[in-house]
Amino acid sequence: MLLGRVTGTLVASRKDEGLAGQTLLVVQNLGIDGEDSGGYVVAVDSVGAGDGDVVLYASGSSARQTLATRDKPCDAVVMAIVDNWQVGAQQVYRKTAADGPWAS
Amino acid sequence: MLLGRVTGTLVASRKDEGLAGQTLLVVQNLGIDGEDSGGYVVAVDSVGAGDGDVVLYASGSSARQTLATRDKPCDAVVMAIVDNWQVGAQQVYRKTAADGPWAS
Amino acid sequence: MLLGRVTGTLVASRKDEGLAGQTLLVVQNLGIDGEDSGGYVVAVDSVGAGDGDVVLYASGSSARQTLATRDKPCDAVVMAIVDNWQVGAQQVYRKTAADGPWAS
Amino acid sequence: MLLGRVTGTLVASRKDEGLAGQTLLVVQNLGIDGEDSGGYVVAVDSVGAGDGDVVLYASGSSARQTLATRDKPCDAVVMAIVDNWQVGAQQVYRKTAADGPWAS
Amino acid sequence: MLLGRVTGTLVASRKDEGLAGQTLLVVQNLGIDGEDSGGYVVAVDSVGAGDGDVVLYASGSSARQTLATRDKPCDAVVMAIVDNWQVGAQQVYRKTAADGPWAS
Repeated sequence: MLLGRVTGTLVASRKDEGLAGQTLLVVQNLGIDGEDSGGYVVAVDSVGAGDGDVVLYASGSSARQTLATRDKPCDAVVMAIVDNWQVGAQQVYRKTAADGPWAS
Repeated sequence: MLLGRVTGTLVASRKDEGLAGQTLLVVQNLGIDGEDSGGYVVAVDSVGAGDGDVVLYASGSSARQTLATRDKPCDAVVMAIVDNWQVGAQQVYRKTAADGPWAS
Repeated sequence: MLLGRVTGTLVASRKDEGLAGQTLLVVQNLGIDGEDSGGYVVAVDSVGAGDGDVVLYASGSSARQTLATRDKPCDAVVMAIVDNWQVGAQQVYRKTAADGPWAS
Repeated sequence: MLLGRVTGTLVASRKDEGLAGQTLLVVQNLGIDGEDSGGYVVAVDSVGAGDGDVVLYASGSSARQTLATRDKPCDAVVMAIVDNWQVGAQQVYRKTAADGPWAS
Repeated sequence: MLLGRVTGTLVASRKDEGLAGQTLLVVQNLGIDGEDSGGYVVAVDSVGAGDGDVVLYASGSSARQTLATRDKPCDAVVMAIVDNWQVGAQQVYRKTAADGPWAS
């Protein structure tokens, strides 16, 4: 899985019917240091993620292993909202009550 | 899923029989900023997309999860025509009646 | 799917038995402009492609969705020989009777 | 499979229910020379790997072929802890009792 | 499939039980010109490949389509030992009795 930050949603009125009613999130990829790493993905939301949330997403056929995405033409799914992670002894990211600011 | 812009069609008279009658779209990849990002994909159309449309496409086994592509040797499918998306508070792209020009 | 040009064949006498009798094509990747883009793939042929042909190939599990490749340890299959494609109003490539030269 | 070094864990209290109770490892990619190669992956642990361990991880649908990950929205799994490997006649890495230092 | 050269083996005593008894090969990626292209993969051996052999490997779910790898958490398998290949009229690589040296 890779890390990303939700930047907003994508609207598509004409789409595969299996995706009707699903939220399509625009997700910017993050590096292990929590910084924007330059790429992005559009992913179906399966956990109620919102703008600014740091999330984990799964790609490929694994993206179809949630209730929201089973048997759908979907190759990316947000399947977790991240609370925190470490690199070595250092905590790189920790979600705060304010839902966004970095803390170490 | 990734963003792309349909630039035209590809014709192949000799091809796997499962793909007979399917439209093969040439799609240029777009970045999250709506600009051409340098890559491309040839994808089967499942939503009636046309020249100049900004679309979303799914890759890999997920590309076979539409009526048009089930059990076909197809690894990319256009599964949505994009109306608009945001990056933060900014609307990067919005489809217009003229079907193409950017608006923010 | 991605575009490529067949440059020759690969011979492997010791290989998975499921691939016995299959033709392994060496395919150079092409960009949307029809130029060599630097990468390559070795793909099983499912359409009778030959040297110099511009082809379309499918990757991943989708490469196993042909009669030649079903249930085989094969992650790339040539599934179409390209006649022509466009980028915008311009025809980038068109197959000719001479089977190779570029025409616009 | 690719090589990586476990740098810590990732905590996500809101996540797909199939992943409840699973350990999410932050893994830095290693090159064949044993050096950090710049990328990372977040992977489910299936072998009891810990901080600093050099591991092997599988990606894509293959990441769902363990007891811990079957049918889960998981696209990467740590499926081995590495003892040693060679490049040519040279042993690049060997796990030691101290669990970390390189030896050649 | 992609080309590689076997550089040695990787040993992992703690690993997914499905991989018990399998040989894990360290494979350096080769370009179409037969030169080291900078990447690598760790792959299960299904054809008895040895040190220095130029091989073909399959990735993703296709890597599980051999007797050695079926239903295993394995995303890369060596499924052929290469005898020779061409790029245009030129034979880039040919295996010799000495099992290694390049010939054109």
